[in-house]
Amino acid sequence: MNNNLALYAGIDGGGSKCSAILFNHKGEFVAQGIAGAANAARDLPSTLHSIVSSIKLALKHAELGLGSISQVRVSAGLAGAGVPNVNAQLLAWKHPFASFKVTSDLTTACYGAHAGNDGVLLIVGTGSSAARMQKGQLKQFGGHGFVLGDKGSGAWFGRKAVASTLEALDGLIVFGSLNKHIMTTLAVTNSTDLLQSMNNASPSQFAALAPGVIGLAKQGDNCAMALVEEGVAYLDKLCQRTLQDTNLSLVLMGGLAPSLEPWFSSVIRERIVKPLGGPEWGAMRLLQSDLSI
Amino acid sequence: MNNNLALYAGIDGGGSKCSAILFNHKGEFVAQGIAGAANAARDLPSTLHSIVSSIKLALKHAELGLGSISQVRVSAGLAGAGVPNVNAQLLAWKHPFASFKVTSDLTTACYGAHAGNDGVLLIVGTGSSAARMQKGQLKQFGGHGFVLGDKGSGAWFGRKAVASTLEALDGLIVFGSLNKHIMTTLAVTNSTDLLQSMNNASPSQFAALAPGVIGLAKQGDNCAMALVEEGVAYLDKLCQRTLQDTNLSLVLMGGLAPSLEPWFSSVIRERIVKPLGGPEWGAMRLLQSDLSI
Repeated sequence: MNNNLALYAGIDGGGSKCSAILFNHKGEFVAQGIAGAANAARDLPSTLHSIVSSIKLALKHAELGLGSISQVRVSAGLAGAGVPNVNAQLLAWKHPFASFKVTSDLTTACYGAHAGNDGVLLIVGTGSSAARMQKGQLKQFGGHGFVLGDKGSGAWFGRKAVASTLEALDGLIVFGSLNKHIMTTLAVTNSTDLLQSMNNASPSQFAALAPGVIGLAKQGDNCAMALVEEGVAYLDKLCQRTLQDTNLSLVLMGGLAPSLEPWFSSVIRERIVKPLGGPEWGAMRLLQSDLSI
Repeated sequence: MNNNLALYAGIDGGGSKCSAILFNHKGEFVAQGIAGAANAARDLPSTLHSIVSSIKLALKHAELGLGSISQVRVSAGLAGAGVPNVNAQLLAWKHPFASFKVTSDLTTACYGAHAGNDGVLLIVGTGSSAARMQKGQLKQFGGHGFVLGDKGSGAWFGRKAVASTLEALDGLIVFGSLNKHIMTTLAVTNSTDLLQSMNNASPSQFAALAPGVIGLAKQGDNCAMALVEEGVAYLDKLCQRTLQDTNLSLVLMGGLAPSLEPWFSSVIRERIVKPLGGPEWGAMRLLQSDLSI
């Protein structure tokens, strides 16, 4: 194959969607395709299906035949790809592409955000985690998931707000605006219905409540402010730890980053820079590097 | 059937086991049978199977034929029986007994602990919850489960201790005796293995770590003490709320009650009395009352 005709696909796969961006040999954007969830640790078959679908869609948008899928060099950053046995299964995949490289979504996001240079990334969306790329090595901090970590994430804010509402309905704490907001949003009027509605909710269902909590904190509601302060205190510490003994820049990403940024300490805010590129671009750039991370 | 030959079975069913006690018409103990889990909300078919098995075992221990199961009047207190649609399914059950009455495990435990009199109960084992029985009405406080509540419970202590260990391994907090204890107990040496080992653990697997945490707190370990103080502060407040505006006595039950009791406030400790009877006896007594709770 003539390298000038080579097609590269950068994949960003997570719990809610899988995005594929096609690039030409100069690293220029060709087209994008978006498919369903691609958390490799949670559901591997669906993840593989989402990767193929997102690339097919991108090819279609680029008005290229589906047959050209065998010529695409694919590099994917996937949630859950860091789990050892999941990684082994991904590498054993009989994919339909010219080549397939895979790493964690945090790696490609960090690599893309700093355009392949050393740097630090904090992602705060449904979950929360931080990473430091330094001398070709990626080190992760935080990001232990809904049950055991992810403090300051959307899912954490939502869960804390619902738990506080159940305590308020029990009469253990004062029933305030935050609790009223949660009940109204979920259209429930008592403890039993609230519990039934959220007891088996997914992290993203909890995370859907987070913007409302942060909004109330901005309006000065004490309970909401206490939650935001507790969450950001953790995220701030996580950034300090990830930046420790370096002079690297920090990129904040994820749905909650813009609204939480003003709550960080000035020490951290001074280190924040805008991202240079997205995770799909990071994945593609990583393919062209000789790094194995 | 001659009422003097009547057999009563009191059932106490929860997440780990189902206990049936057979009583004669005078309310005297005849025999006990113990079978598998009976959380009606989590697994109804297994619960029904456990109820029948535990009664059959009790009949066997009493050297009574299995045919006499049709003469037994059964009253069960089951975890999850308070959930409306679960309750409806339990009442629709085509059981093999002379009669079958069902309520929540908290109701029978509270009724038994105070021998049918008004009183307050705090259960702190794998989960935590409180109940007040007053004028034939039972009111529950707390007990919102592993995801949204159950603060101060075994599962809560275990989860907090594991989460703290992950933060210590990230270098966010000092790695202390509590963290060392958790890693040794779970036989893991790094963050990835710790997460893999506990990420999908059940509440009872987390609760298995609680006695170790409380033990370290007794030895004066600061991190463990902070966790016990946070957990008991909630449980103490829960008791205060449940006792509020009454002069009722309080019974503490559950696996962690004895070790946590010294940490409660003196206001609460002064109200504590010994239980007069177990939940199976409470279930049987409830059958003989005309209460529908």
